[in-house]
Amino acid sequence: MRHFKVHGNLLSPATQRVFACLHEKNLDYQFINIDFSTSQHKTPPFLAFNPFGQVPAFEDGDLKLFESRAITMHIEYAYAESGTGPLVSKEGKSNKGVEGVWIEVEKHQFEPIILKLDWEVVMKPVFGMEADAAVVEENERKLAAVLDVYEARLKESKYLGGESFTLADLHHLPNLHNMLGTPMKKHFESRPHVKAWCDEILGRPAWKKVVEMQEPEWKRLAAEMEKH
Amino acid sequence: MRHFKVHGNLLSPATQRVFACLHEKNLDYQFINIDFSTSQHKTPPFLAFNPFGQVPAFEDGDLKLFESRAITMHIEYAYAESGTGPLVSKEGKSNKGVEGVWIEVEKHQFEPIILKLDWEVVMKPVFGMEADAAVVEENERKLAAVLDVYEARLKESKYLGGESFTLADLHHLPNLHNMLGTPMKKHFESRPHVKAWCDEILGRPAWKKVVEMQEPEWKRLAAEMEKH
Ligand SMILES: N[C@@H](CCC(=O)N[C@@H](CS)C(=O)NCC(=O)O)C(=O)O
Ligand SMILES: N[C@@H](CCC(=O)N[C@@H](CS)C(=O)NCC(=O)O)C(=O)O
Repeated sequence: MRHFKVHGNLLSPATQRVFACLHEKNLDYQFINIDFSTSQHKTPPFLAFNPFGQVPAFEDGDLKLFESRAITMHIEYAYAESGTGPLVSKEGKSNKGVEGVWIEVEKHQFEPIILKLDWEVVMKPVFGMEADAAVVEENERKLAAVLDVYEARLKESKYLGGESFTLADLHHLPNLHNMLGTPMKKHFESRPHVKAWCDEILGRPAWKKVVEMQEPEWKRLAAEMEKH
Repeated sequence: MRHFKVHGNLLSPATQRVFACLHEKNLDYQFINIDFSTSQHKTPPFLAFNPFGQVPAFEDGDLKLFESRAITMHIEYAYAESGTGPLVSKEGKSNKGVEGVWIEVEKHQFEPIILKLDWEVVMKPVFGMEADAAVVEENERKLAAVLDVYEARLKESKYLGGESFTLADLHHLPNLHNMLGTPMKKHFESRPHVKAWCDEILGRPAWKKVVEMQEPEWKRLAAEMEKH
């Protein structure tokens, strides 16, 4: 039995965030698929892991955690030296505060917009539904404004938290990957520093493994949709 | 000139979160009021502190930060031993992960509901507007479900992160204080462990100082509204 267990879904961005971190740290883990089609995430065995009924949940031996970013922070804290090494800014103590700012920015400024766009331009097409043009337009406008701030930041430093790759960057990976597979990619590609940053962090070997893991699941989902 | 500066607004919950942390640490600071009535938070001098144009922003000597929880985390990290001492769980290393879970829960499960209720039942009355009953009802239902999870958690441990007061609790203070001044308080008071937790953490001397600071500002706002 492996020490680490991830309960989640291969296509869930929050679950992928945890995979990305485990692969960076080169930590071996067991994946336990939670079946959304039967609402397994709302059944008592899963609710014992996360009372809010969302994936991922995580086990590190006896320690049970949920919330993807709490899990990555725990992994970073407890296994800093594993794999590719500490995912913290290397400019010293004061930069930890700056890294913290961008960890918060991902959650409060970036993700809320992406969640709306993801539903419209990633998931609705899978389910054969039409995107709501007004919602897309409103959130594209917001995304462009947020990416202007990112562009200015990434002109100053190679990564969001400073000169090295940190959790502030890593937390963006699943949502960046999804958006770059849609027409939204123009907003990322038209900003040179944002584009260079995307290329760099999405090209990390740890993230590429997470992309490989999800591919069969996207195919399976597409095939299932064809049947209906 | 003081070492620490808080740019913000006395009635802003996010700004109050930073005050609460500074008072816990017994750190002296300069407060710089950002005038919302003239949209000062959208002017270049403030945007240089926070390109997203929101309060609070923070200065620790040369270090400039924004996002309230990044600021509290920095203060905790850099001045752990000041004032009332480390605001981290005292059960050792593994509990840091659990504390992290509840820091995330505050952001992702608790605050989104409170932001909606705050507008309806705290701010609209100040502006002489009527609350939208459907929005209130929907969010009361969500709040009750979230507080059921809190009740179960607080039956197991005195504070959210474990047996000691941590940032996971502190981050809730401004929103708890606001909600307990409205009809929403029944949801908190009908759950005995939630109620005991609220009483305990809202009774901390550091938080009481933040309440004192905001009182004249509420009065000023009410007087201004009367004039209109
Ligand atoms: N803030 C949470 C979000 C988790 C989340 O939204 N998970 C989604 C899948 S990506 C889920 O379980 N959705 C089902 C539901 O909310 O009922 C985290 O980062 O772990
Ligand atoms: N996630 C941010 C939220 C900051 C925030 O929403 N600030 C509000 C006041 S509490 C604000 O500046 N609102 C004005 C605006 O968004 O334009 C934080 O925690 O600092």
